[in-house]
Amino acid sequence: MIVLLTDFGPSEYAGILKGIIHEIDYETKIIDLCHSISPQSIIEASWILKNNYPYFPRGAVFCCVVDPGVGSKRKAIAVKTKNYFFVAPDNGLLHETLKEQQIIEIRKIPVPKTASKTFHARDVFAKAAATINRGEFESIGKQTTSIKKLSLHKKAREGIIVRIDHFGNLITNLPKLNKKSYTVKINNKTLKLPFYSTYEQAKSGLFLIEGSCNTLEISKKNANANQELNLKANQKITIQ
Amino acid sequence: MIVLLTDFGPSEYAGILKGIIHEIDYETKIIDLCHSISPQSIIEASWILKNNYPYFPRGAVFCCVVDPGVGSKRKAIAVKTKNYFFVAPDNGLLHETLKEQQIIEIRKIPVPKTASKTFHARDVFAKAAATINRGEFESIGKQTTSIKKLSLHKKAREGIIVRIDHFGNLITNLPKLNKKSYTVKINNKTLKLPFYSTYEQAKSGLFLIEGSCNTLEISKKNANANQELNLKANQKITIQ
Amino acid sequence: MIVLLTDFGPSEYAGILKGIIHEIDYETKIIDLCHSISPQSIIEASWILKNNYPYFPRGAVFCCVVDPGVGSKRKAIAVKTKNYFFVAPDNGLLHETLKEQQIIEIRKIPVPKTASKTFHARDVFAKAAATINRGEFESIGKQTTSIKKLSLHKKAREGIIVRIDHFGNLITNLPKLNKKSYTVKINNKTLKLPFYSTYEQAKSGLFLIEGSCNTLEISKKNANANQELNLKANQKITIQ
Repeated sequence: MIVLLTDFGPSEYAGILKGIIHEIDYETKIIDLCHSISPQSIIEASWILKNNYPYFPRGAVFCCVVDPGVGSKRKAIAVKTKNYFFVAPDNGLLHETLKEQQIIEIRKIPVPKTASKTFHARDVFAKAAATINRGEFESIGKQTTSIKKLSLHKKAREGIIVRIDHFGNLITNLPKLNKKSYTVKINNKTLKLPFYSTYEQAKSGLFLIEGSCNTLEISKKNANANQELNLKANQKITIQ
Repeated sequence: MIVLLTDFGPSEYAGILKGIIHEIDYETKIIDLCHSISPQSIIEASWILKNNYPYFPRGAVFCCVVDPGVGSKRKAIAVKTKNYFFVAPDNGLLHETLKEQQIIEIRKIPVPKTASKTFHARDVFAKAAATINRGEFESIGKQTTSIKKLSLHKKAREGIIVRIDHFGNLITNLPKLNKKSYTVKINNKTLKLPFYSTYEQAKSGLFLIEGSCNTLEISKKNANANQELNLKANQKITIQ
Repeated sequence: MIVLLTDFGPSEYAGILKGIIHEIDYETKIIDLCHSISPQSIIEASWILKNNYPYFPRGAVFCCVVDPGVGSKRKAIAVKTKNYFFVAPDNGLLHETLKEQQIIEIRKIPVPKTASKTFHARDVFAKAAATINRGEFESIGKQTTSIKKLSLHKKAREGIIVRIDHFGNLITNLPKLNKKSYTVKINNKTLKLPFYSTYEQAKSGLFLIEGSCNTLEISKKNANANQELNLKANQKITIQ
């Protein structure tokens, strides 16, 4: 099984990867985990992958492409862990996910000279994922030892927006405390927000809730919180 | 076969369900019927399901999640009809679809205490759908008898907008009459609109057409009708 | 394998096709190549198909529906080439793709009287694609000889925008020259833009790059070029 995670949005780019993968391995399953990562947002992709890879069957190959450095000298890597495989540009995307797993081997995927300088997902990563999925991880390229780190800012009660979802919920990397309301500082604004444990309990306007990744999210009752707040992933936020 | 219908949009949420389903049943097919239901719009989901479930093979399990009451006391239900299975929150979403079918059994899906209060699709519905798809409907939970009703407003020539599609077509629940033009009342506005039987016949601007669900739709020639009218699903409309 | 290419966007329409196809052929694979063609943009669909069909395995059936003439007298066609099959409205969409292939046979797909006048993808094309995919191309309809042509404007250094992607890149049908900067004329504006071979080399603002279809694209560093330029597919452009 190959699982796709990209910032390609509703484009043809994910469809092209599927053609290429099935050309190599006609029978495999391909699952779209998410293509709605904000363009170039390595932070968001890192968050989505880290929180969700364990929901997939063992042996799954995650093909993760958020790749602002495409065509440059950044490496392309393939990683085998105890239970999964990952291919991605070496830009920090995999760091948080690999921290919690037992890494068996890291290999560097060679980039052919004929590869497009703007679309390595097509010319490098899809082929690598399909090859690994056929059981040929060792043929991918030479072994390497380290991968690039990513720092998700988090210092006591100061964190970041790690994801803005389709409903406009602003997902943070800060856990809840045992409080009925919080003081939120973001973008030079200070908000006093109530905490509810379900959307239904909320009456109106902005509020905090514990989201499905067990961190605090800013939501708005029957509405889109980010239409009011207009924030972006990676923005710093303090909630106390 | 499991068919997904949600308001998750282009998020990771549908992808997560697929991981969970394949963890339980690796081989099953999963089809995305639609994830572009307007957030929290039970009416739209009800319309899409009712008009389209018969296009799917018998035995399909529809996993329908538009769930503003997630985490509250609203029930989660599973329904077996003569030809299909359905899982959904008990909020009216299934009512119109079940009215036209022979119901064999309704069961209440228990919500584990550990379930996220914001994402029962992941922690309740996906698992139930996969279990049913494996042939274990009876193991889902205790039998129950009634489901929540939904009233789609319709009184003579007064109905509602049941769906706004990607092209900006405003789909109503009112059938056509044998007329060349209609008077449309919506939002305190009165419009006189011609009727055409194909998009090609229309010359310019707004017009009415009989859509693929055999009801009247407001369209705009080579353009997006709802960019001009700016309406929402569930709004009342009179066409006569 | 059936490959879908439409302007249906994030709607239920592609999902309905999948139900219908699986009703005829439960086991077949269905791949979404792209549903984000701009509404009614035959040019964009033509470009996406021509550049990407070779990435799919031989024998694939492409079901291509961008169909402003739906319900009118435009023909519905099915084409068998040496390596692939295509079904589409006969509106020029297939022309560029077929020019480079060996055509074996063209057949006219009959439109049943009961077909919706707005949704032939459901009532005509999906069924035809599934039937062809089962190996019954000859049963589709009577042979015909010609298909409608499409002219993608291109005259020396004057071409068109053939696609605007999800990142806001403006893709043209003009190849690069060996230059470090270009003069771009579009919409009565003249821009002097530098050329970079990777996104990373670019410093800021608008620039030209060679895209993955080997033509020039206008991009913006870590941003959306079309939010600045606000262009549409099919617009004429001069780059020299």
